[in-house]
Amino acid sequence: MYINLSGQTVNKNDSTIVRNIYTDALTNGKSYNWLHYLTKRIGARLAGSEADNKAVTWAKAELDKLALDKVWLQPVTIPHWERGAKEEAQIRTKFGKFDVDICALGGSIATPESGILAEVIEVQSLKEVEDLGDKVKGKIVFYNRAMPIDKIETMKAYGASVDQRVYGASVAGKYGALGAIVRSMSHKLDNVPHTGTMRYGEITEDQKIPTAAISTNGAEMLSKLLEEKEKVELRFYFKQNCRSLPDAQSFNVIGEIKGAEFPNEIILVGGHLDSWDLGEGAHDDGAGVVQSMEVLRQFKKLKIRPKRTLRVVLFANEEFGLSGGKAYAAEAEKMNENHIVALESDSGGFSPRGFGFTCNDQNYNQVLQWKSIFEPYNIHIFARGGGGADIGPLKKDDNILLGLRPDSQRYFDYHHTDADVFEAVNKRELELGAATMTSIIYLFI
Amino acid sequence: MYINLSGQTVNKNDSTIVRNIYTDALTNGKSYNWLHYLTKRIGARLAGSEADNKAVTWAKAELDKLALDKVWLQPVTIPHWERGAKEEAQIRTKFGKFDVDICALGGSIATPESGILAEVIEVQSLKEVEDLGDKVKGKIVFYNRAMPIDKIETMKAYGASVDQRVYGASVAGKYGALGAIVRSMSHKLDNVPHTGTMRYGEITEDQKIPTAAISTNGAEMLSKLLEEKEKVELRFYFKQNCRSLPDAQSFNVIGEIKGAEFPNEIILVGGHLDSWDLGEGAHDDGAGVVQSMEVLRQFKKLKIRPKRTLRVVLFANEEFGLSGGKAYAAEAEKMNENHIVALESDSGGFSPRGFGFTCNDQNYNQVLQWKSIFEPYNIHIFARGGGGADIGPLKKDDNILLGLRPDSQRYFDYHHTDADVFEAVNKRELELGAATMTSIIYLFI
Repeated sequence: MYINLSGQTVNKNDSTIVRNIYTDALTNGKSYNWLHYLTKRIGARLAGSEADNKAVTWAKAELDKLALDKVWLQPVTIPHWERGAKEEAQIRTKFGKFDVDICALGGSIATPESGILAEVIEVQSLKEVEDLGDKVKGKIVFYNRAMPIDKIETMKAYGASVDQRVYGASVAGKYGALGAIVRSMSHKLDNVPHTGTMRYGEITEDQKIPTAAISTNGAEMLSKLLEEKEKVELRFYFKQNCRSLPDAQSFNVIGEIKGAEFPNEIILVGGHLDSWDLGEGAHDDGAGVVQSMEVLRQFKKLKIRPKRTLRVVLFANEEFGLSGGKAYAAEAEKMNENHIVALESDSGGFSPRGFGFTCNDQNYNQVLQWKSIFEPYNIHIFARGGGGADIGPLKKDDNILLGLRPDSQRYFDYHHTDADVFEAVNKRELELGAATMTSIIYLFI
Repeated sequence: MYINLSGQTVNKNDSTIVRNIYTDALTNGKSYNWLHYLTKRIGARLAGSEADNKAVTWAKAELDKLALDKVWLQPVTIPHWERGAKEEAQIRTKFGKFDVDICALGGSIATPESGILAEVIEVQSLKEVEDLGDKVKGKIVFYNRAMPIDKIETMKAYGASVDQRVYGASVAGKYGALGAIVRSMSHKLDNVPHTGTMRYGEITEDQKIPTAAISTNGAEMLSKLLEEKEKVELRFYFKQNCRSLPDAQSFNVIGEIKGAEFPNEIILVGGHLDSWDLGEGAHDDGAGVVQSMEVLRQFKKLKIRPKRTLRVVLFANEEFGLSGGKAYAAEAEKMNENHIVALESDSGGFSPRGFGFTCNDQNYNQVLQWKSIFEPYNIHIFARGGGGADIGPLKKDDNILLGLRPDSQRYFDYHHTDADVFEAVNKRELELGAATMTSIIYLFI
């Protein structure tokens, strides 16, 4: 089906307004200052943490200052997990011990207090563990399939590898392994481990094993030494005391400008307010949060009165099970709200390159008309597919989900790590992303 | 006129070969390792410095290893200037002294040994100094027009501001100023001063005054305090002992694969081997150097036998007056060489976005046919205009000069500063740039 975006054909004025949007974002933009506060004053904001609560309070207060028509909090029940003390890990051989950098995967159980010390079996896939079966019993399974380096979009390389991180412990645990160590999801060779979600799925309580990511340098060294496994008498040791706590509460932070003509047609823009507990959640997804806020600031500042309702949603807990996105969609369903368009920014605050659209052919052909408007801003990608995890549950046959597509090359240098800090975000790249979002929303609205 | 690029229409095979080129650059590429050596083992390589000589020796040796048909050095006479001791600068007021970061501009004379201490007059343009005339006498002129932030391409913002740096001292000196301080060419607010060339032009010897760039943070502070000039009794102090030495010798480093069918038609790819003396010359232009070398490595590795002669030129002394580019073109003219295409990479090792072409309409329309081949690699910009400083002297009515266009947003965070180091270059972005260059050369050749 086709959404009747009344009057949304390209008109002469559009180029001028889009130019004003870019100029305003680069000249008066607030996204960078907001990001500074969110990362440096609040910092990492894992769902359920004190910083997560602070971020909710801060975001609501900032939206309040924009003089929108309405700002509110939507309660969301969230799982609560804590990393605990910094993890320890060593490659132990008869020639000596080598410390390596690991971090517990989100949702993992702890090791015993004395840690786990065991032989290592290196594998390239979940399938390989299934094939090995009982041979992994009593061992630490080391998933070391690197992200493929020849894919142009790094997101695709991530998609081709992340099954090891998500399901590695579950599969290895089923066959009696003692632990699972997973190569960090990154192309970069460094000492920075990358956390992320894992799931135990359907295995029994006693099959659950602790799991952690190892830095890519650590993975390379471990793999190298494993070639001489017997000769060097290699064992791997790791210790972590993460734990799951009772469910907690967080909030989707929501603000809106009511549509002047079609107030029941909602156009949503958003990112997720939570982050992992490492670094400062700057690219993931501080950038998306402040860019989404900036869209509404720009509408107010430039006095663009939307025909449809423009709503910003800063989602709770994306990282740890998508609680905010699910709760939001459930409430929207209950209230019979009509979300005709939803735009998410959750791919980092890098130079914007375009959008990915999940919609039917008719809607896609309609948005393609706008492509030339974006050329002066070096926005060229109008691809099929994409959107965002948080907005995914809003998908219907006839609406449009879209995701901002920044340049993806550096994303996995920072993703889910200590390196994802404010300094890793370039002011202009962040602002250009925000302007790109405001511009397409302007064309929709 | 039209270049007859015989047989260079798009054919089915091209997409496959281009895909192989990208895969090879990302998988077996040597550009990043080369850049590591050039930046970390050789480092900054100002024309005439010992490191400049080392870079020539290294580059020739690396080209020799590629088993090209010919590798040679072309002698180039270059000016030789030295920064000397680290500069000192202070804003002095009756309330105290504030150190600020400056760096002498390339070609500037020294201050007296005791430095210069004088009142400051802030201006926004060369014109303003012309209008002030004798009023600048005995003062330090402070050029503080910021790079415009609303231009999408940062190169254009640079072009709109750099006249202050190049001619600021000349204009101020003509009217008897004691020194000229220029706001660094950067959008970023930080403590990092940006050097670059300046020219005294036609003024007399006694009109020459020392000139330096001040960091953007320093410029902001100075400008703020100047609002209370009288009240705080503001004076600016700076000291530098840079000097010009007798002309020296460097070399263009050249290698080529002879064309199998049209050996007299030369297709050139290059960057400049020299850099400023701050940082490591990683983006400017270590990246362009190693990407250009990579193009020839890929041709050998992928066994693409060029119909035309493929030549890499690593130019001497671009930064300090383009000696290498001029000498190369003069020699080419003398030898009656036919350069039908020249591609330069000198805009940083960032994600490649496309090319800028300086050529006639007929040639431009021909290259436009290839645009779709690059879409899978997110290369979308096929713009008119551009090329590179070094290849500029090769321009003829009927040939094609083109420049790689990487994303420009971060370039002036690093340009001509201590921050332009290896770590500022992302491996994949560098490699994708090299593959983009090899691909278009493949289509030309």
